[in-house]
Amino acid sequence: MTAAADHHVVIVGAGFGGLEAARHLAPTGLRITVIDRRNHHLFQPLLYQVATASLPTSEIAWPARSLLRRYKNVTTLLGTVVGIDKAGKTVLLEGEQPIAFDTLIVATGARHAYFGRDEWEPYAPGLKTLEDATRIRRRILSAFEQAEWEPDEAARAPFLTFAIIGAGPTGVELAGTIAELAHDTLRGDFRNFDTRSARVVLIEAGPRILAGFTPDLSAYAERALARLGVEIRLGHPVSQCGPDGVELGGEFLAAKTILWAAGVAASPAAEWLGAPADRAGRVRVEPDLSVPGDPAIFVIGDTAAVEGADGKPVPGVAPAAKQEGGYVAGVIKARLAGKAPLPPFAYKNAGNLATIGKRAAIVDFGWIKLRGRLAWWIWGVAHIFFLIGLRNRIAVSLNWLWIYFTGHRSARLITQGNTGTPRQTE
Amino acid sequence: MTAAADHHVVIVGAGFGGLEAARHLAPTGLRITVIDRRNHHLFQPLLYQVATASLPTSEIAWPARSLLRRYKNVTTLLGTVVGIDKAGKTVLLEGEQPIAFDTLIVATGARHAYFGRDEWEPYAPGLKTLEDATRIRRRILSAFEQAEWEPDEAARAPFLTFAIIGAGPTGVELAGTIAELAHDTLRGDFRNFDTRSARVVLIEAGPRILAGFTPDLSAYAERALARLGVEIRLGHPVSQCGPDGVELGGEFLAAKTILWAAGVAASPAAEWLGAPADRAGRVRVEPDLSVPGDPAIFVIGDTAAVEGADGKPVPGVAPAAKQEGGYVAGVIKARLAGKAPLPPFAYKNAGNLATIGKRAAIVDFGWIKLRGRLAWWIWGVAHIFFLIGLRNRIAVSLNWLWIYFTGHRSARLITQGNTGTPRQTE
Repeated sequence: MTAAADHHVVIVGAGFGGLEAARHLAPTGLRITVIDRRNHHLFQPLLYQVATASLPTSEIAWPARSLLRRYKNVTTLLGTVVGIDKAGKTVLLEGEQPIAFDTLIVATGARHAYFGRDEWEPYAPGLKTLEDATRIRRRILSAFEQAEWEPDEAARAPFLTFAIIGAGPTGVELAGTIAELAHDTLRGDFRNFDTRSARVVLIEAGPRILAGFTPDLSAYAERALARLGVEIRLGHPVSQCGPDGVELGGEFLAAKTILWAAGVAASPAAEWLGAPADRAGRVRVEPDLSVPGDPAIFVIGDTAAVEGADGKPVPGVAPAAKQEGGYVAGVIKARLAGKAPLPPFAYKNAGNLATIGKRAAIVDFGWIKLRGRLAWWIWGVAHIFFLIGLRNRIAVSLNWLWIYFTGHRSARLITQGNTGTPRQTE
Repeated sequence: MTAAADHHVVIVGAGFGGLEAARHLAPTGLRITVIDRRNHHLFQPLLYQVATASLPTSEIAWPARSLLRRYKNVTTLLGTVVGIDKAGKTVLLEGEQPIAFDTLIVATGARHAYFGRDEWEPYAPGLKTLEDATRIRRRILSAFEQAEWEPDEAARAPFLTFAIIGAGPTGVELAGTIAELAHDTLRGDFRNFDTRSARVVLIEAGPRILAGFTPDLSAYAERALARLGVEIRLGHPVSQCGPDGVELGGEFLAAKTILWAAGVAASPAAEWLGAPADRAGRVRVEPDLSVPGDPAIFVIGDTAAVEGADGKPVPGVAPAAKQEGGYVAGVIKARLAGKAPLPPFAYKNAGNLATIGKRAAIVDFGWIKLRGRLAWWIWGVAHIFFLIGLRNRIAVSLNWLWIYFTGHRSARLITQGNTGTPRQTE
């Protein structure tokens, strides 16, 4: 095990996959370095709640180094990886010396993608980071503020029209929550219009919403959204996005707020590695999640294209990333211990969930499907459970007392401006 | 009272003074418009806790329109005032039509000021807004991240040196909390240095810290800061600020993080009004807080230079602004009712408080002075009381349940990017 003790594992990305790998590897005593360009781990499944002003940023993000503090053999670094030197076995960083590795785990996630229409981004922001969420929150809230200034009803309408492009879980969650914001939360706050006149339009190119679910659950979700006042437009891809609205199926929808929930692309890890990738830029990994031809480098989470045992692609969700992180840690441990290689990675579907506003949800565990209020409670409890798993301080009312007695602080987030080049002050 | 019913009161600024004036005037049924360039009222006394990662932004800021929602005769507008047409009795706005007023209350607050050295601002940010607080938080946390990258101890030291310029309450609170952050909260989170090696240096040009308090309380505060490990430099104004540190008394202190807590200047209301102002730009108002020669325009809060009954200037604190807001509302009500004018404004000192870290504080109520833990608890309870007065939801653990049952959302903050021009999207 002396070789193992000298062995340096570098993990790029402190998301679900990277953190899980670090936690599984840490007890071996290996030297581990976790690099992320943000200082925080983000609980992405609740990001839409920040975007819709339901949760403050600090409730769904925690300093990565704080989550790893008890592992003294794990060093956490805030840094931006710009490339990987496979031959030299180093990770290349912006403004810092390269970092050498013996084994590398790439878990750099995904960004939203515009399918070749990157020029739409300024008009239709997507939702992947805390900054994305506060930007969308600012857009939504500002639209109502703008409407309050506009005396003419026709001129006001575009400010009160919210177009959401893409009806996967994120699009559905955004649409449902914005509808509640307009019809419920903000009601009575404005003098020159009724917030209930706001239109929330969910646009989907495919034939139904939540295509990852069964048709009956999709149909239920459509009815639940309609009850919240959300308009659903199916079967028409958006052909144009601009500052004044979107164009779909030859029709122009005047909307000052457009949100993008239609697609993601992997981070540029495939380029760094010169590795084969799928259409979304995800690295096509070996059955043990290593890079073809380079067994010392693994790719996991949203950055990897993995096939499940059933031949279906493993979805880009948190449980999949965590399973992959844990699996790769096992592969590395077996190798260093000289044991037999693990069987190929097999994804265990923990269930598929989506919420529609605050009273309905759909849950598909495979063996049972649920919808409605019970599903919502299951969704809520599941998410609260995972939140608490990371952070015992749900209550911000307890924040002060907590700081008083333990000294721990929960809001340690670097959210604005520069996102990680350490030596650059702003 | 028909004249009164047509009467339009415009209040610029939704800080402590402006909101208090709105609340006192609202029950009269007068038409009232509150304009602020931010969408939120900010509880400034706790802003340093956001800057030091103790509280999330949403715990100390609330949407102004939500605070005023129950007054149906009060319209809240997000807008940036750029001038006042005294003759035409209109408020001039950026990108919007002017708004006519019968009575105007200017409560636009203050900014930090560099006494003619505005070029220092990029190196020594001040603390007045939520963005200021998150910027300072980012600087402080990033400095520790940068230190983790630096293998050389001498080269690392400037990243672990925090210079705070100005030892009023804000400077003392920042210094004490940063010391705790370094010595307590962050301890064990870094691998390449001991966070306790961080230096916090509090710089004051005057002969003692907290000059607004009695010398014995100042002396106590100095001892309490020293116990936290804060170095205090008295009697030397800073002669230079740059990216690498500050110069004072001929000495150069290498510090990558410099915070400015040394001075404030009023917002440009005096210029807008062509009114006489003091050195800090505050409008020298009449005894009834109106502008000399213009009885329909009042200036209150940090924007006004007011003398107390004892001839001493009224301090720039929240209770003073609130008293002035309430007083001006009374003056307006008396006028419109045709009653005798109120006696001149008289400031009632509600007490003077400052904290040193999380275990010590000083409190001066005039009739009694306190220091130490008891003072800290009084400070804490007083602030929690005022927070709760504005917002019953301290607990963010209760946030979800609250949203579920009431639909209210607490995190509705427009914090980044554009700060208020409504028609501008970003």
